[in-house]
Amino acid sequence: MTVNLRGNSQLNFDTGCVEMIHGSGGKAMAQLIEGLFLKAFDNPYLRQQNDQAAFSLPPGRVVMATDSHVISPLFFPGGDIGSLSVHGTINDVAMAGARPTHLSAGFILEEGFPLRELKRIVESMAAAAKEAGVPIVTGDTKVVERGKGDGVFINTTGIGVVPEGVELGGDRVRVGDHIILSGPIGDHGVAIMSLRENLTFETAIESDSQPLHDLVADMVKVVPGLHCLRDPTRGGLATTLNEIAQQAGVGMQIQEANLPVRPQVAAACEFLGLDPLYVANEGKLVAFCPADCSEALLAAMRAHPRGGEACRIGEVVADPHRFVQMQTRFGGNRIVDWLNGEQLPRIC
Amino acid sequence: MTVNLRGNSQLNFDTGCVEMIHGSGGKAMAQLIEGLFLKAFDNPYLRQQNDQAAFSLPPGRVVMATDSHVISPLFFPGGDIGSLSVHGTINDVAMAGARPTHLSAGFILEEGFPLRELKRIVESMAAAAKEAGVPIVTGDTKVVERGKGDGVFINTTGIGVVPEGVELGGDRVRVGDHIILSGPIGDHGVAIMSLRENLTFETAIESDSQPLHDLVADMVKVVPGLHCLRDPTRGGLATTLNEIAQQAGVGMQIQEANLPVRPQVAAACEFLGLDPLYVANEGKLVAFCPADCSEALLAAMRAHPRGGEACRIGEVVADPHRFVQMQTRFGGNRIVDWLNGEQLPRIC
Repeated sequence: MTVNLRGNSQLNFDTGCVEMIHGSGGKAMAQLIEGLFLKAFDNPYLRQQNDQAAFSLPPGRVVMATDSHVISPLFFPGGDIGSLSVHGTINDVAMAGARPTHLSAGFILEEGFPLRELKRIVESMAAAAKEAGVPIVTGDTKVVERGKGDGVFINTTGIGVVPEGVELGGDRVRVGDHIILSGPIGDHGVAIMSLRENLTFETAIESDSQPLHDLVADMVKVVPGLHCLRDPTRGGLATTLNEIAQQAGVGMQIQEANLPVRPQVAAACEFLGLDPLYVANEGKLVAFCPADCSEALLAAMRAHPRGGEACRIGEVVADPHRFVQMQTRFGGNRIVDWLNGEQLPRIC
Repeated sequence: MTVNLRGNSQLNFDTGCVEMIHGSGGKAMAQLIEGLFLKAFDNPYLRQQNDQAAFSLPPGRVVMATDSHVISPLFFPGGDIGSLSVHGTINDVAMAGARPTHLSAGFILEEGFPLRELKRIVESMAAAAKEAGVPIVTGDTKVVERGKGDGVFINTTGIGVVPEGVELGGDRVRVGDHIILSGPIGDHGVAIMSLRENLTFETAIESDSQPLHDLVADMVKVVPGLHCLRDPTRGGLATTLNEIAQQAGVGMQIQEANLPVRPQVAAACEFLGLDPLYVANEGKLVAFCPADCSEALLAAMRAHPRGGEACRIGEVVADPHRFVQMQTRFGGNRIVDWLNGEQLPRIC
């Protein structure tokens, strides 16, 4: 009798399901880890099989960001909870101007979840991490009883290092700063909502889920004096602008005519009764920079495949009320308020 | 109309519950974060209110560990999911010989969960982090619909720095190493099981949940050439020993007579049909060190309040089968196998 953890005889990826024993710390859990996670995420840190990863970091300030993903449905046009959980945390780290270096992954699995789907998610996660060049170096798996979870929840936490001379933050935004958006808004939220509502459009709407750290690296290289970067995820662009206005003690003035929204996204929003300003994005960023750098920043962004549609959408203004205001297409001005009710639950 | 996020008028900690809007990215979420999390975890990193924390680390190899906590029940003698989530991850980082420096916290809340209980958990978490001297520097909150979660799940991820000259790992364990345990086993799992089964004993059994990083700091200072540290959590001591035997390609011989188990824990285990070797601990560690250092290590451990009952429980032996064997009190020898079935679900 040899304890052979190399085999995965008990993992049936065709018809098998997650069982409570996969979270018990015993042999079945070791088999799940060896037969699925280690195989997919394969890297020297994980292969050491300690309860933590150890590594050297380049010099510089360290950044840490965490995000739990509870999205429903788990698979959507343009991605799934696996790729999203990698992109989301990479982007949170990158928004500090940092280069993400290492990720952790914590899975909460519901008893009865098909191993086939778990494998698809884990492999998508592994592919996203590989494409982004940021390894998943440590992980954890828990299993909860049927009815105490919802298939799969994934926490990813990321760390990264900020290049010298770069220091970003919402509190650094100044009156006069230009507000630059990296591309059209609303794609992610509308892709998910269309799926939930069983809507089909002539042109498929795909999530914009993508990693932005390479784009950010180019941006901080050209404009190291950038004031702030933020990715408008939950709550959309409107929420992000309000958060920063609050943090910096400023107002903002944006122009609706400059706000990029794909025609099919605009149409879907109208149909679903959504305002694209409040819809989640997973592959866009908004940048605040001194006015005299904005042309150079735009040029750097447009030269990168993930920033090709970058545009200036407005500017930071003095306002003791810290309002975000938008000049509409018809010339009026309206307040873009905080999201008060609930628009889109479990979207990211 | 001023957006006043300083108030928390909508948070009623007496009768209020978690609602879906608390996860929507809008005003209600901002209020929950300001009125609860920021207040409890208060530190300069969180106060910056960016989506990530930035800080400097002392020189040395960096360690990263992650753990999702799905424990049921949420409150137990000796702790709760909040303190446990801090201790668990601090200990995972410390088992690399590292000094934990920063934690992240990701909450998955179920709609309808009482805000009163959430507050109790968050405050316990804050107290544990403060006592351990490891700040929670960044966080995330998600809300899932009623019936799609189980009150509260908490992911904590930690980073830390390894002192120069220290390098631990399961693969460094060698034949001849002494195996040292920091104190009695089984307390955490038995405390939880007793509560689940509504058992009461003459002497209350409390979880051993506690942070071990200060003890570890003393240990690596005295014996920097230590081979391996591991905390026997899920699956208990038996699982930990088997994992390391597997990793290092060795066998182990332990002595039952040397294995510390509190009398009330032993009694509860007998009553519940549990083997303390497989029961989870949340404040114990097992150390592997060269035989000639073991007296010095034991002395250092016993001089620390969290290692006062440290003892040598066995030694590493050559064994191509990688078996963990135990000499019983009656003189026989039995194999301490991997946990095959499921003993204790959702214990940590």
